Amino acid sequence: MGGLHIGVDIGGTKVLAAEVGPDGTIARTARRTTPGRRVEVALVEDALTEAVEEVADGRPVDAVGLAAAGFVDAEGERVMFAPHLPWRGDPTRSRLEERWGTRVVLDNDANCAARAETAYGAARGARDVLVVTLGTGIGGAVVLGGRVHRGRNGMAGEFGHMQVLPDGAPCECGGLGCWEQYSSGNALVRFARTRIGRAPTVLEEMCAGDPARVTGPMVTAAAEQDDVVALQAFESVGDWLGVGLANLVAAFDPEVVVVGGGVSAAGDLLLDPARSGLVRSLVGARHRALPPVLAARFGPRAGVVGAADLARSVVASAPRT
Amino acid sequence: MGGLHIGVDIGGTKVLAAEVGPDGTIARTARRTTPGRRVEVALVEDALTEAVEEVADGRPVDAVGLAAAGFVDAEGERVMFAPHLPWRGDPTRSRLEERWGTRVVLDNDANCAARAETAYGAARGARDVLVVTLGTGIGGAVVLGGRVHRGRNGMAGEFGHMQVLPDGAPCECGGLGCWEQYSSGNALVRFARTRIGRAPTVLEEMCAGDPARVTGPMVTAAAEQDDVVALQAFESVGDWLGVGLANLVAAFDPEVVVVGGGVSAAGDLLLDPARSGLVRSLVGARHRALPPVLAARFGPRAGVVGAADLARSVVASAPRT
Repeated sequence: MGGLHIGVDIGGTKVLAAEVGPDGTIARTARRTTPGRRVEVALVEDALTEAVEEVADGRPVDAVGLAAAGFVDAEGERVMFAPHLPWRGDPTRSRLEERWGTRVVLDNDANCAARAETAYGAARGARDVLVVTLGTGIGGAVVLGGRVHRGRNGMAGEFGHMQVLPDGAPCECGGLGCWEQYSSGNALVRFARTRIGRAPTVLEEMCAGDPARVTGPMVTAAAEQDDVVALQAFESVGDWLGVGLANLVAAFDPEVVVVGGGVSAAGDLLLDPARSGLVRSLVGARHRALPPVLAARFGPRAGVVGAADLARSVVASAPRT
Repeated sequence: MGGLHIGVDIGGTKVLAAEVGPDGTIARTARRTTPGRRVEVALVEDALTEAVEEVADGRPVDAVGLAAAGFVDAEGERVMFAPHLPWRGDPTRSRLEERWGTRVVLDNDANCAARAETAYGAARGARDVLVVTLGTGIGGAVVLGGRVHRGRNGMAGEFGHMQVLPDGAPCECGGLGCWEQYSSGNALVRFARTRIGRAPTVLEEMCAGDPARVTGPMVTAAAEQDDVVALQAFESVGDWLGVGLANLVAAFDPEVVVVGGGVSAAGDLLLDPARSGLVRSLVGARHRALPPVLAARFGPRAGVVGAADLARSVVASAPRT
């Protein structure tokens, strides 16, 4: 006891590990690139290990919480399926617990983000909350009566693969027209890339005219300088965000909607078109109290903060003897 | 006390009132045509009054439960908005209570159907249930932990107006491409009508060659005689049902899906293509336990049975002194 609580957010493009204090503040972080989904599982687990060791820096660790961008089973033991990661049902949690010699807990990244935001973030005090995270893809979580609703398979909240366009863009999950093909970090970058070279813009300068060099943070930086292509990219991604949110609000009727993940760092550049899309698409919008659409307090770090909080709560509720 | 408990289901095309026993059995029914959504509210309330009086037939009534195809507020007092009915936020419950001199309770039709099916129907024993009702449009309800989740505005479960096709068919709600434009009684009839006259079929005989005379029950009867147009209509409506269910299952991960409403009388003609569409469209379908898609036990009568059960439970929990 008295050791660190480390959260690790395992996304489709990067791994972020962080030492998190009991008030949700981040003390120290480490990053690695996610090796991809067509590699050996061991490569991903090596990257996690490096990131955790860098954060721990030789200090004792009480527990590590893992937030994975994929389907985690109801027991929190396995990543059953992850479009952007190689795990397919192997016992990740117990294998890493053995490898690291410390308590390990595992949940979906969006469930972790929801945990952070309802505990001490944008949705504090709300009972029914919809959390949508825009990173490489879309993650999501449903908080009902103050608790994360995990579902029969632990797969509730997988909003990213709801179909928003029949026969639409092919998705890594095997489906067509999934929401995250139109509203995510990947969608933002894809939109911007197709428009590079049409006219001289800030974004074109940033990527030196090479569409392949465009990244999400680059589009955000360009939009903040009023770059027309970058603004159009956020308009498109934000509008699709609102259209999909309208479907979810029709189904859940939540008090608050929280948007997290890497893309949410753009704030109102993303959320203003999302709010417009929500009002336009939501049935009976004039006859109901609309939920506010808020940026996650912890932004792209909600997953890692929630994962550490999960680690802390597991240790607190069942200390190792 | 000791009087009748009457349920009334107020749909877009018809009003069904029924005397319902404590085990959910229907003893006596009365029907009226719904006057429509562009008429005076009083006309609809007259139709309800006639139907309730016909069922009561002079016997004392303990309470009437109303199941309305529309948004009912969180207090169960008003129909806030109903695409197929004229009410727009007037205090329907208390007005009818005064008019009839008996206890009146009000909820959404799909919430009532969910109540009937989880209490003693297809979903008995399940905690997390998705109920979708296909009538004139689509209604829906979410049961979580054994209770209907009503949401901040009492509007949870309004699945029919989730957008499944951007810039799709215009809907009476004002939106475009709403799910119920592709999967509902109206959708079934519309599909069949466009195909009348192309080739001699059973359905063409039934409607005497006049597309305007095609009705939902007629399409069901024709499909049961293997009429090719009617079977195609169910294939289309059923497949769209499955596609929409996949979105909802991705979001809620329920134990069971129950399909009710008038169209569900067709049974597997509707549900088989729905099951195929669900498996095809659901992300990670091979990595999860799929919820069974079951016909509502009470079929198109689930709403009226649940409304009566709601009336009974309100009287039981707070008898009038």
